[in-house]
Amino acid sequence: MTDPTQPQVQLPQGFLFAAGVAGIKASGKPDVTLVMAPDGASAAAMFTRNLVVAAPITVGREHLRSSRGRVAALIVNSGNANCATGKPGLEDARSVCAALAKELDLEPKQVFPSSTGIIGVPLPVEKIVAALPRLSVAAKTGPEAFTAFAQAIMTTDTRKKIAYETITRKGDIVTLAGAAKGAGMIHPNMATMLVYLFTDIVATPRELDQALRLAVDESFNNISIDGDTSTNDTVLLLASGKSGVSLKSRRKEFDVALKNVCRSLAQQIVADGEGATHLVRLKIEQARTRDEARQVARAIATSPLVKTAWAGADPNWGRMLAAVGYSGVKIDPERVNIYLGPQQICHNGAAASFDKNAAHEYMTRPSYDIRILLGSGKATLDFLSCDLTAEYVHINADYST
Amino acid sequence: MTDPTQPQVQLPQGFLFAAGVAGIKASGKPDVTLVMAPDGASAAAMFTRNLVVAAPITVGREHLRSSRGRVAALIVNSGNANCATGKPGLEDARSVCAALAKELDLEPKQVFPSSTGIIGVPLPVEKIVAALPRLSVAAKTGPEAFTAFAQAIMTTDTRKKIAYETITRKGDIVTLAGAAKGAGMIHPNMATMLVYLFTDIVATPRELDQALRLAVDESFNNISIDGDTSTNDTVLLLASGKSGVSLKSRRKEFDVALKNVCRSLAQQIVADGEGATHLVRLKIEQARTRDEARQVARAIATSPLVKTAWAGADPNWGRMLAAVGYSGVKIDPERVNIYLGPQQICHNGAAASFDKNAAHEYMTRPSYDIRILLGSGKATLDFLSCDLTAEYVHINADYST
Repeated sequence: MTDPTQPQVQLPQGFLFAAGVAGIKASGKPDVTLVMAPDGASAAAMFTRNLVVAAPITVGREHLRSSRGRVAALIVNSGNANCATGKPGLEDARSVCAALAKELDLEPKQVFPSSTGIIGVPLPVEKIVAALPRLSVAAKTGPEAFTAFAQAIMTTDTRKKIAYETITRKGDIVTLAGAAKGAGMIHPNMATMLVYLFTDIVATPRELDQALRLAVDESFNNISIDGDTSTNDTVLLLASGKSGVSLKSRRKEFDVALKNVCRSLAQQIVADGEGATHLVRLKIEQARTRDEARQVARAIATSPLVKTAWAGADPNWGRMLAAVGYSGVKIDPERVNIYLGPQQICHNGAAASFDKNAAHEYMTRPSYDIRILLGSGKATLDFLSCDLTAEYVHINADYST
Repeated sequence: MTDPTQPQVQLPQGFLFAAGVAGIKASGKPDVTLVMAPDGASAAAMFTRNLVVAAPITVGREHLRSSRGRVAALIVNSGNANCATGKPGLEDARSVCAALAKELDLEPKQVFPSSTGIIGVPLPVEKIVAALPRLSVAAKTGPEAFTAFAQAIMTTDTRKKIAYETITRKGDIVTLAGAAKGAGMIHPNMATMLVYLFTDIVATPRELDQALRLAVDESFNNISIDGDTSTNDTVLLLASGKSGVSLKSRRKEFDVALKNVCRSLAQQIVADGEGATHLVRLKIEQARTRDEARQVARAIATSPLVKTAWAGADPNWGRMLAAVGYSGVKIDPERVNIYLGPQQICHNGAAASFDKNAAHEYMTRPSYDIRILLGSGKATLDFLSCDLTAEYVHINADYST
């Protein structure tokens, strides 16, 4: 993975980016951004499993269906989620798409909308529409424009989240670039997480869908910040085909590259978890199945008692063991072993003899590893989470409705 | 319900209480307590559903089984949970029971043990055993002794939790008294919650069991502080029979009285939730079933985003609606209505027009009501929860392993 600020970064061909200020955010920060695929792109998308879904998700699904997975423009606003806004909300999302389609001489179904921010407040459509002419003129390629895109989708994020991959073979180059936002309401099955993945590989929507499901299952579905599942989660993968290289001919390399980009973005999201001071890499081992491993990981990663112990750099294996015990997965506590980095802290469900000072010291690192061995099978899962701090409470108690 | 400090309080006949300092807690506060039923008592108990269970729970279950539900003494220590202590932990719990049995000339199976406190540290058996002679001599009846009992079972609790009920008919008096501890790790299916209920009614263990299940289902199973389910939860109901009045003859009154005591204790537990500043009475209405109502209530009551909004007195109905949406219960968001006290704040899944200042003001009260109408059936459930504050994080990040 290369640094986006470095000159060697190459963006996927066939996409133009622009960002600006529509005036939705009171802070005056960028809050609207446009991506154009002038010759169109194949698309695949995954959405939140929350039954309460934001209007742009409903409209985005409709557009992907009616366009048979072809997208020519993406419009994202931050500062307002257009969620729990009823039928007027749906009309608002459609109005934004229609206005952009008119501006770019497209059909509305070729436009994919996203929104993130406050729930339950009408979308300021006119502010977004007023920004469109400026954005469509300013759209361009290059790392700078892509970075501006990544910044404009942020809400409580403290930093932008970007990842790149390049596949080179026989002189052919395929490029992948991804940007994500999300720092709260992050939980498996997706969260107030927006992820946009761009590539210039040649692929059908169906091929993209297969690749995306694989990659999401090994990245965004294995993270949790606060256990809340958002109403607006979207992961969108667009392929312009401009590299001239087919996905069929690079199946394996593309799967790996896509997974790498998704994992990098997932890790960046958790590391920027609201108020988080530690990134915890949970490794669940010896589970009967991968699903059971995920269930155990989620119980641990959503336990306030575990997460506050992490905040206090407290090697409290008892709280983790208790979370394993109520996870709903059938385990024998006396076969559970827990390792904190290099030290075993729980042996067969009881205290291991370990150096507590060294353990505490290890947990003061910005990121570290915890291995939970369940002793019941051979399945393994990597899961990312973070600690729960007083700062998280401050951020979310003071965030305005 | 009467005030325990008032002179009219009458304790159930047939029980003696004593509390003292064994030296388990570093603070030097009372940490061991004994209840004697000199002529024995019928018993019913409910335990944690966590697969990781503390040693005293295993031993307590064994003793209730082998004694066929007859208990003559209860020994509780705080400061150490005797959990995740392996086979030595079981031996420790048995040693304490054996020592007390010897002291009181009982069989070990007549002794019921409980422990609460730190997980994974060996129980200091010798300290507890050394305290037994003093306790057995000091045991007596009366509100003062009962209050000392309630205080000695506390860990992070900031206040004791006591409730009384009296059933009077035709000159006969039946008395019920309950004491509870628990302030963290509180969640449906029970939590680091110890609840002891005493009555002088005449009843078989089976009759008590029926009554207890009913009462717990409408009290302790409908509360959540932090979503963690503890390894040591115990609710124990003892009936000395000393009133001479049979449960059969007072079935209805006893069920009501027991439910009242349990509800009062449940409410006191949530109100004393670690760091909690608001007690929130959730009322789920129009659910298809009571279980679905509970599932929705739990999703709301364990959402960090909802709980931090409560801490900020923020009438953020969007976060509550989002939690309903991911609860796993099938609902139509457009049929969901939410009321905050007297005001409707969400109308058919979208914003209701309401007075935000009044709503904020209402949420600054120490306790208040939120009604969630699901629009899918006729089942109703009352559920108690509390807010998530920075103080909760401080308490649990700094609590020593």
